[in-house]
Amino acid sequence: MGDRAWVEFDSARTAFVSIDMQIDFCGPKGYVDVMGYDLGLTSAPIKPIHYVLHNIRNRTDIKVIHTREGHLPDLSDAPYNKVLRSKIIGNGVGIGDQPKGGLGKLLVRGEKNWDIIDDLYPIPGEYVVDKAGKGAFGQSNMPLLLKNLGITHLVITGITTDVCVHTIMREANDYGYWCLLLKDGTGATDFGNYQAALKQIKMQGGVFGWVSDSKRFIDGVMTAFK
Amino acid sequence: MGDRAWVEFDSARTAFVSIDMQIDFCGPKGYVDVMGYDLGLTSAPIKPIHYVLHNIRNRTDIKVIHTREGHLPDLSDAPYNKVLRSKIIGNGVGIGDQPKGGLGKLLVRGEKNWDIIDDLYPIPGEYVVDKAGKGAFGQSNMPLLLKNLGITHLVITGITTDVCVHTIMREANDYGYWCLLLKDGTGATDFGNYQAALKQIKMQGGVFGWVSDSKRFIDGVMTAFK
Amino acid sequence: MGDRAWVEFDSARTAFVSIDMQIDFCGPKGYVDVMGYDLGLTSAPIKPIHYVLHNIRNRTDIKVIHTREGHLPDLSDAPYNKVLRSKIIGNGVGIGDQPKGGLGKLLVRGEKNWDIIDDLYPIPGEYVVDKAGKGAFGQSNMPLLLKNLGITHLVITGITTDVCVHTIMREANDYGYWCLLLKDGTGATDFGNYQAALKQIKMQGGVFGWVSDSKRFIDGVMTAFK
Amino acid sequence: MGDRAWVEFDSARTAFVSIDMQIDFCGPKGYVDVMGYDLGLTSAPIKPIHYVLHNIRNRTDIKVIHTREGHLPDLSDAPYNKVLRSKIIGNGVGIGDQPKGGLGKLLVRGEKNWDIIDDLYPIPGEYVVDKAGKGAFGQSNMPLLLKNLGITHLVITGITTDVCVHTIMREANDYGYWCLLLKDGTGATDFGNYQAALKQIKMQGGVFGWVSDSKRFIDGVMTAFK
Repeated sequence: MGDRAWVEFDSARTAFVSIDMQIDFCGPKGYVDVMGYDLGLTSAPIKPIHYVLHNIRNRTDIKVIHTREGHLPDLSDAPYNKVLRSKIIGNGVGIGDQPKGGLGKLLVRGEKNWDIIDDLYPIPGEYVVDKAGKGAFGQSNMPLLLKNLGITHLVITGITTDVCVHTIMREANDYGYWCLLLKDGTGATDFGNYQAALKQIKMQGGVFGWVSDSKRFIDGVMTAFK
Repeated sequence: MGDRAWVEFDSARTAFVSIDMQIDFCGPKGYVDVMGYDLGLTSAPIKPIHYVLHNIRNRTDIKVIHTREGHLPDLSDAPYNKVLRSKIIGNGVGIGDQPKGGLGKLLVRGEKNWDIIDDLYPIPGEYVVDKAGKGAFGQSNMPLLLKNLGITHLVITGITTDVCVHTIMREANDYGYWCLLLKDGTGATDFGNYQAALKQIKMQGGVFGWVSDSKRFIDGVMTAFK
Repeated sequence: MGDRAWVEFDSARTAFVSIDMQIDFCGPKGYVDVMGYDLGLTSAPIKPIHYVLHNIRNRTDIKVIHTREGHLPDLSDAPYNKVLRSKIIGNGVGIGDQPKGGLGKLLVRGEKNWDIIDDLYPIPGEYVVDKAGKGAFGQSNMPLLLKNLGITHLVITGITTDVCVHTIMREANDYGYWCLLLKDGTGATDFGNYQAALKQIKMQGGVFGWVSDSKRFIDGVMTAFK
Repeated sequence: MGDRAWVEFDSARTAFVSIDMQIDFCGPKGYVDVMGYDLGLTSAPIKPIHYVLHNIRNRTDIKVIHTREGHLPDLSDAPYNKVLRSKIIGNGVGIGDQPKGGLGKLLVRGEKNWDIIDDLYPIPGEYVVDKAGKGAFGQSNMPLLLKNLGITHLVITGITTDVCVHTIMREANDYGYWCLLLKDGTGATDFGNYQAALKQIKMQGGVFGWVSDSKRFIDGVMTAFK
């Protein structure tokens, strides 16, 4: 078997998922910026995701789901180790704190930095899942939403590839969802980790699903919806 | 901050976890062998795990948990995509099938190939968690067991690093468990993926926990229990 | 609105569920018998369930799922309060203990008393879900099985009405499954609790689903499959 | 064994839970009022809950958790059968609709009718869990919150006894939490269902926990914290 395969999706049962495209992960003065990582890597998927959204919105029946990682202002839904480690990497400024010159408290629901970036902001009719973890199946309404919508297939994008994106893809896969990751629609805080995350998906015949890119996906969609 | 840190564990609240050390993943004629991967990589952690078990059994109050991935004989707990992909990589022989000259049906509960290897077999008083997925928190009794035992910290080993080990570590982390991976006590079907999996843990101040090795861990344990 | 309504089921998406029809709950020398409750109440649903199984097996595509409550021999999947309370009601003989003249350890997987009674024993092609709790959605493969089978509607029977049956019906309802309870196919250890359990379902327009009986259900099925 | 027992709680590991004391369930023009049920029954627990809160706030280290049932404005987290049945009982006006002369959309997050009543409103330092279901363990941050707080025991109040209160108590029990229901701190839409719900808890040695009342509970607390 080669590396290339044709796969079939029923658009009525497919959701396009944009994971955590929040200022905190890809915008200036957000969490990732404060930690000192290269925003060029985590903002790279903005354009490909925008391209996909532009082409599926209004023209197809593919559902769109956005996720947001964030915590209640009292941090009661943030494990202590998560808060502690964020303070270590941020030299004392972590989740729940407002950095000097920052937009708001890092990763706290309702803050400006926590929200989705303007370019990819949800439009009416699209779904938003708020989650406290890296994953989404344990403590959010994601499983219920997918069930209510009758979804069986997920086309996945977002950030960061090796953390939230991979965790959600692993969970979805364990629950029997068919997952396709668009490789130009995702990015990590480290390029090697990004590359490895793609490769890990393809082991064992596709242990976590398939990998494609935004152009091929939209080409396929356009053929179906012309 | 450097790469080295001292961490503190309460042994009464710590579980040593040995993930999926089954013939199917590291022994001859098991699932990984049938897929054609190098058993040298997935069997490498046997010796370090044995070293840890030897030193904590009987001498400490650290709990020991073994996990096993496997499915009911009717495969009713195996998502269709998981079965399909295993057949693709195995040229038609996948989960639920018995390969030519094999020991039993691949990844099916009760088969010889599905069980834990002799060298690391659970002894009385140790716990075994049977799980259908790569992860363990969605559809097994793992969360209940950890709660019943009062566990807060996990020392993790097993195979494969980038698949089951990482999925369980991600889930545990999302639920607030403190996780330490022993890097010589784990292995993957691809060495690059193994290395990347270790690195992914350490991003963002330790986004999924800490990494150490079996010697350092046992040195620390011996200091506490001398 | 009156008390009567016509409801529509797609047989291909329907599962008939027989909950915990184990010796431990309705047979001599089982757990309920040891606790001193009237077996006449918990064995009453045997005949109606048998009638349903007889009529849907082989003649329809309705899936059949049996559940069994039980624990691992080391009771590691039994919360301490559950074990303690069972010992209180049983004068020291509770879950995990073998009563004098008993068939085996109460509610322990693999014991004779733990298994499903002969009259309703699963046949090949039927599914069995083993669960540690009163409910089934938290720590068993029930959600995965329902998803794999494409089930949306559940026809529910079993014991006991106010404990396991109601817990599973509540969980299923919260997850969006359409639930129909057959009132002669279920029983409780107390007749008043049985009656109240039925009434509780019908509050608020059917807050947990619908209630019917085995004859009406089979009459409907026979009309569809004649 | 008689009906009376002394039980012991560690206040540092205990949470007092006030379930769904929202206008929608016990206030004028809320959901229960629109369905035509007697508000006298569901508002009866207000005074006992207030009595408990008054006595444990500031004087004890018992944590306080409030829950709210509600849905996103797009109802994406509401199963279709739940919405449908609410419309049937409400003659077309159900969840997500604003009744004539109502305060807002029924059971929709952010609406006035959805929020907790003034008399029992959370104060700073108390926790609020928003949930889409009758239960709270499947799709909310309740399990994570309890784990973060180190809670093992729950003192439960709220409405309605036979629906949300019982579902949460059943889930908590299955996960190993020790549960005590205060019988004057809870109410149902039907008095017989309320009585039966109390009785169901006490079967089988306390299959879902214990039952007490607000006076006895506060008497015990005051003895400990005098």
